[in-house]
Amino acid sequence: MNLIESYIETNKEAFLEELITLLKIKSVSTDKKFIKDIKNCAQFLKDHLLTIGMKTSTIYETQGHPIVVADYFVSAGLPTVLLYGHYDVQPADPYELWNSDPFTPLVDSDYLYARGVADDKGQFFAHIKAIQAWLAVKKTLPVNIKILIEGEEEIGSKNLAAFLTENKEMLSSDVAVISDTPMINKNQPALCFSLRGMVYVELIVRGPNRDLHSGQYGGIVQNPVQALASMIARLKDAQDKVLIPGFYEDVQTPEEKEIQALKNVPITHELYKKDLGVTDFVTDQIDIAKQLWLEPTLDCNGIVGGYINEGAKTIIPAQASAKISMRLVSNQNPEKILEQFKAYINSIKPQGIELDILVHNLAKPAKMNTSSIYMSAAQKAYKSTFNKAPILVGEGGTIPVVADFKEILGIDTVMMGFNCPDDCIHSPNERLLLKSFYTSIKTMAHFFANVRN
Amino acid sequence: MNLIESYIETNKEAFLEELITLLKIKSVSTDKKFIKDIKNCAQFLKDHLLTIGMKTSTIYETQGHPIVVADYFVSAGLPTVLLYGHYDVQPADPYELWNSDPFTPLVDSDYLYARGVADDKGQFFAHIKAIQAWLAVKKTLPVNIKILIEGEEEIGSKNLAAFLTENKEMLSSDVAVISDTPMINKNQPALCFSLRGMVYVELIVRGPNRDLHSGQYGGIVQNPVQALASMIARLKDAQDKVLIPGFYEDVQTPEEKEIQALKNVPITHELYKKDLGVTDFVTDQIDIAKQLWLEPTLDCNGIVGGYINEGAKTIIPAQASAKISMRLVSNQNPEKILEQFKAYINSIKPQGIELDILVHNLAKPAKMNTSSIYMSAAQKAYKSTFNKAPILVGEGGTIPVVADFKEILGIDTVMMGFNCPDDCIHSPNERLLLKSFYTSIKTMAHFFANVRN
Repeated sequence: MNLIESYIETNKEAFLEELITLLKIKSVSTDKKFIKDIKNCAQFLKDHLLTIGMKTSTIYETQGHPIVVADYFVSAGLPTVLLYGHYDVQPADPYELWNSDPFTPLVDSDYLYARGVADDKGQFFAHIKAIQAWLAVKKTLPVNIKILIEGEEEIGSKNLAAFLTENKEMLSSDVAVISDTPMINKNQPALCFSLRGMVYVELIVRGPNRDLHSGQYGGIVQNPVQALASMIARLKDAQDKVLIPGFYEDVQTPEEKEIQALKNVPITHELYKKDLGVTDFVTDQIDIAKQLWLEPTLDCNGIVGGYINEGAKTIIPAQASAKISMRLVSNQNPEKILEQFKAYINSIKPQGIELDILVHNLAKPAKMNTSSIYMSAAQKAYKSTFNKAPILVGEGGTIPVVADFKEILGIDTVMMGFNCPDDCIHSPNERLLLKSFYTSIKTMAHFFANVRN
Repeated sequence: MNLIESYIETNKEAFLEELITLLKIKSVSTDKKFIKDIKNCAQFLKDHLLTIGMKTSTIYETQGHPIVVADYFVSAGLPTVLLYGHYDVQPADPYELWNSDPFTPLVDSDYLYARGVADDKGQFFAHIKAIQAWLAVKKTLPVNIKILIEGEEEIGSKNLAAFLTENKEMLSSDVAVISDTPMINKNQPALCFSLRGMVYVELIVRGPNRDLHSGQYGGIVQNPVQALASMIARLKDAQDKVLIPGFYEDVQTPEEKEIQALKNVPITHELYKKDLGVTDFVTDQIDIAKQLWLEPTLDCNGIVGGYINEGAKTIIPAQASAKISMRLVSNQNPEKILEQFKAYINSIKPQGIELDILVHNLAKPAKMNTSSIYMSAAQKAYKSTFNKAPILVGEGGTIPVVADFKEILGIDTVMMGFNCPDDCIHSPNERLLLKSFYTSIKTMAHFFANVRN
């Protein structure tokens, strides 16, 4: 391993330059105007995977954005590791809050700043660089490796389950590895035991057939913004509990290892408040880690209706809409929650409006097998590079593919994350510590070796 | 009067061309980017008023947009009429809902389409053309005339009261006339007995110092959109009554003439619903005219926060804001209502957010003197040109200057409106019936004569 670590040290600058090239591609998946960048990104990765020495690398078209699959088969007697990543990124807006251009990566004070650098380009690229190091130094790999990089994770991995089903044999593996979750901080790695699921919907409220003069119609016609606000207000109570009937009925009692994990997490209200710039949380009685890992939640991600430019305009808007996401924990079912949501919203809909509910995505929550040999291999790898054992944590975010890997390919996933909680993923000024990037390459190189032993 | 009517008939095409030139000027008052158009519009009017023969015409700068004042003094023994209009217009957005460009006026099937054609350029321009007809035919006017055209009516006439106070003597008159209210329909003119006042505020809710990943912070940090929605939802109850404590306490019992006027109005629920494309009103028990003329109301004019583009983005937005207007009836006081609003909003503000309240404008409600000699002159004028007596109506909209004319100049106002309820003022595809434009010129010419007699 020393030679491999040396190779990584020697090639740090080159790896950084390559990552910067990848980050310049505006592969925003949710907005049609970036469709060409999405295609360019898949092509770049396909080519790059051949360059580093993968034996095959192929772009698969889907009904949505393409999937890149690469393969390096060593021997039938060795375990096969499936590495998953996503090359798509969140939209960069609001642009004006970035200190540098989100698609012109900037190195500043030990950090690399760019949209997608932490979520997830910088992380899956470390897998690729670890493979490159192995192949450059040893001319082979310690395990069979398959790589799958998709372009729709940020929009719910809509076409991935079908792709896995159709290509079950090609993708058959012993374990999947994903690097898309945070560490506790830059010195304390973590292994993830659970992921939350998601239901993401958009409410569209239509009122009169045109914007109306508020003086000449106010108090007669239902105002779509007020109708929408009244529905959103009734989704949660003053203690921030979701009011959809049945919403909590499938939430499980925490397991012993989860209760234990909660105790190990060095999270304090004061640190959180300072980082976020808030004086109060939504309620005073909050167990942050428990809320994020073991409780479902609901958030309004965006709202718009009527006149939103400078100054005053006196209208009753013809339309208003809001995007709403629910994060689900094991054992909640996204289809069931969606039906409960629809039934409830229709029951509280004010009169005088039409309501459409668009479904943007559904994803199942997932629990990891924390006692597998692969989890041990990951623990050992972190110890080698961070000189510290990773602690067990839950994850508030959603990675839909984990449930699909279990259901369709029958394999567990090990979540080996390398970013930090303050890396501003999904926010302006997303960043990744350069040291984390280089250490993650080394950690992955160790992991491959550990899986073999 | 026959010669004057003939002159108007003969010059219809020329008048229309001039109005089109005026409508091409994008004099949107609420948005700073139109500041040059505002200045151009004031200049155009100043010059045009001299062209038609006014003895003086002057642009007065204010702290906001300029005011144009013109004068034609005939004799100290004659009554002086102060004609008021506003050259500013509402913003044209949403642009995509216009069938033609809002600032490229289009004549189609008897209508002229353009932003501001009904509110208020087409209407005050009729005053000017009536004066032009008198001067062209008779070389003098039957009364002394002063004209005041301002550029801030759509943003609350912020600088007008100070201007009236400073120029009290210059503007001293016997009566004011405003054409900025609708008729019942194109064949049934109306005279207005009341105008509503206004309080227009913007709520700005600030949460965390950046947009956050909803999976990693949802349920902990107060969501500004949900906080805003919860406050808006508590502004009105399910029967659409405003919940601000004390809001209704200064609302007066209707007078006999108002009760009588309500009975005369040919408004039906069915006509309204069909025109607006709604199946229900905000409540089933609504007296439309009573609600618009004699009841205050509250509307959310616009809301925005978080991700509002295509698709899904999973964030807790850092900020959300909403514009809210309240329409007041006599005897409500806008300052008092504003204080009540602020106190109530602060009392229902959820924890974990900061709240700013911007005040965009305040305007007093107004009641007209319906038994003056000027009101009779107006009634006679309508009878001459529409062959029908105008009926007495209230007005749901706000024209702040009317209360100022009474308070500062000590004069009553006669509201001689010529547009129709379906002219889409403040909405896309604003229009004015060409016939109404020409008839309004003749009606004003008659009115001037009637005031003298």
